[in-house]
Amino acid sequence: MPAPVDHEARRRDVIRIAISVLAEKGPEALSFREIAERAGYSTTIVTHYFHNKHDLLLSMFQAAAQTGVDRVTAARGDNLSPQECLEALLPLTEDSRRNWRVVLAFWGSGTADEAFRKEQRKRWREFLTMVKEQLDRLDPGHPTPLELRARTILALLIGLATQSVFNPRDWTAGHMRRSLHEALAGIAATAKDQGHRQIERGGT
Amino acid sequence: MPAPVDHEARRRDVIRIAISVLAEKGPEALSFREIAERAGYSTTIVTHYFHNKHDLLLSMFQAAAQTGVDRVTAARGDNLSPQECLEALLPLTEDSRRNWRVVLAFWGSGTADEAFRKEQRKRWREFLTMVKEQLDRLDPGHPTPLELRARTILALLIGLATQSVFNPRDWTAGHMRRSLHEALAGIAATAKDQGHRQIERGGT
Repeated sequence: MPAPVDHEARRRDVIRIAISVLAEKGPEALSFREIAERAGYSTTIVTHYFHNKHDLLLSMFQAAAQTGVDRVTAARGDNLSPQECLEALLPLTEDSRRNWRVVLAFWGSGTADEAFRKEQRKRWREFLTMVKEQLDRLDPGHPTPLELRARTILALLIGLATQSVFNPRDWTAGHMRRSLHEALAGIAATAKDQGHRQIERGGT
Repeated sequence: MPAPVDHEARRRDVIRIAISVLAEKGPEALSFREIAERAGYSTTIVTHYFHNKHDLLLSMFQAAAQTGVDRVTAARGDNLSPQECLEALLPLTEDSRRNWRVVLAFWGSGTADEAFRKEQRKRWREFLTMVKEQLDRLDPGHPTPLELRARTILALLIGLATQSVFNPRDWTAGHMRRSLHEALAGIAATAKDQGHRQIERGGT
């Protein structure tokens, strides 16, 4: 008797291969046939899991975003510094660059679609919560609202990642790390600056 | 005798209409036929200016990026503050949101193409130069290298813009402005902080 098919594992396999194809050839070259060939499945098996390319791209985005969440969680578990935990979101490895290419393909195609927008909003909130946690570790009593600081750092991380994916020569790992460090130093300095001003005004 | 055709004006017209179609319907719905119909031209006229969709998308990106450059130049000419000049790059108007959608479509499709990458690098350098000029106005003698400060602010602007285009409810104009302001305040505070530290160490 043949072993029962592990549908969840197969589905993950298809997504993983689709992410590689997209990263190598761009979203236009992404086809069920190519994915099936690389996976060694028939096209019918691939279309069993994903109704159409749109459906597949949404699942690829979910997988890429989840990898980002998992990386930060792992960095946090290893008790890395706040900067290092935040760096876990940047495209510093080939695997992470692949995932960012998926995110960008998703953004590029998803402008007009409500399912896409909903997923994007959901993930954005998850990432914002993670950034908040790291900034709170760094500067627990900072006078600027945590939400504003976290939005600024999350937008910076997204901007660094998008630039680096297209322009890795001008945006190396070192550039990304230094920019993030500079922004975190700015937040720390703002707290002191506000502290000084409070002292100057005779406050506490 | 009919008036001679102004090819440059027609070409710009086609690009402008293509940007509207893309912003409304997404890049997949962008077709020469739809553009020609909206413009009141024949499809042959449109394909006279653009060989294929790739060629058109590259021209749309160039036009969108040039609009950004022109906005900052205009803000500078009106003697607006550095923050206001930088805000000229953010999607604070419907016109600017449309242009950002083009940029995102370009990023989403352009991963594997050298002509795209080259154009992206060229524009990135132009924008970096503009950001440098504004930061230099703000803080002429800042101890952190201008290049590093400008990269950080440019990446932040790009991140804010991409988030706002997809998630305008969570990233309003006010959120974008406050994040930019917070980052600029951080840069200013870093200068003071480094000044304090120099003083503490007995330096100048």
